[in-house]
Amino acid sequence: MIKNLTENEARELLHDQKFGHLGCVLESGEPYVVPVNYLFKDDGIYVHVLPGQKLDAMRVNHKICLQVDKIEDSSRWQSVIAFGDFQEIKRINEKIDILKEFSAYSEQSTPVEAMMEEKWNQGGLVVFRLNIKRITGMSES
Amino acid sequence: MIKNLTENEARELLHDQKFGHLGCVLESGEPYVVPVNYLFKDDGIYVHVLPGQKLDAMRVNHKICLQVDKIEDSSRWQSVIAFGDFQEIKRINEKIDILKEFSAYSEQSTPVEAMMEEKWNQGGLVVFRLNIKRITGMSES
Repeated sequence: MIKNLTENEARELLHDQKFGHLGCVLESGEPYVVPVNYLFKDDGIYVHVLPGQKLDAMRVNHKICLQVDKIEDSSRWQSVIAFGDFQEIKRINEKIDILKEFSAYSEQSTPVEAMMEEKWNQGGLVVFRLNIKRITGMSES
Repeated sequence: MIKNLTENEARELLHDQKFGHLGCVLESGEPYVVPVNYLFKDDGIYVHVLPGQKLDAMRVNHKICLQVDKIEDSSRWQSVIAFGDFQEIKRINEKIDILKEFSAYSEQSTPVEAMMEEKWNQGGLVVFRLNIKRITGMSES
């Protein structure tokens, strides 16, 4: 049976997972999608990235989303999307705390994170928060 | 070693995989991401969807992308993104041929496809082609 998830059910999936796909809109107007690990806490979604075109884009157009799915098979799946605004974490203490939490719980790095390991101490790492405006989700079971 | 993929290498990943994440831009200006199975043929990427907000959005704003990754571990991964334009396949014979190819090669349905199985004969299914404008990719090995 296919149904819409309640907001609580959708939040539960966001809490349970830690890997998703971040969407943003490039300055050309094109959508951009990248795999990321994330941290869902204090009602926000934290992600870290290296400087590049997607960061440039998010700094201009704050509308972003995170899509997370859990697909067991064709008739048992959940998919959630959180829409919200990009907010860069600039306070160094807050940034370090978030990065420590990532280190503690990430078992497997995404491509972006693999690059970060080298950059950790080089000041190139940017942490941002997706301030959630709405969450939608669907499931089949 | 992290490197940019050549276009040929990126195309190879698109050929080898069949599951990715489609990005589009909603009429609100927000990015939207959804997991999809795809077919890469004749230098285009074919996807099928049911009517809904993402289809409405793509019919208005043709700029879309497909992101595909293959992540073995934190130091062995590839990630590719194909940018291009949405083009709806309206000729019924072409649409049926594409849907038959999907049926033949899909082992596991995505959420969207699971819904489609019910709708197959109800005329609700939409097939579109991402006409590729450019492909970029990175890898670490």
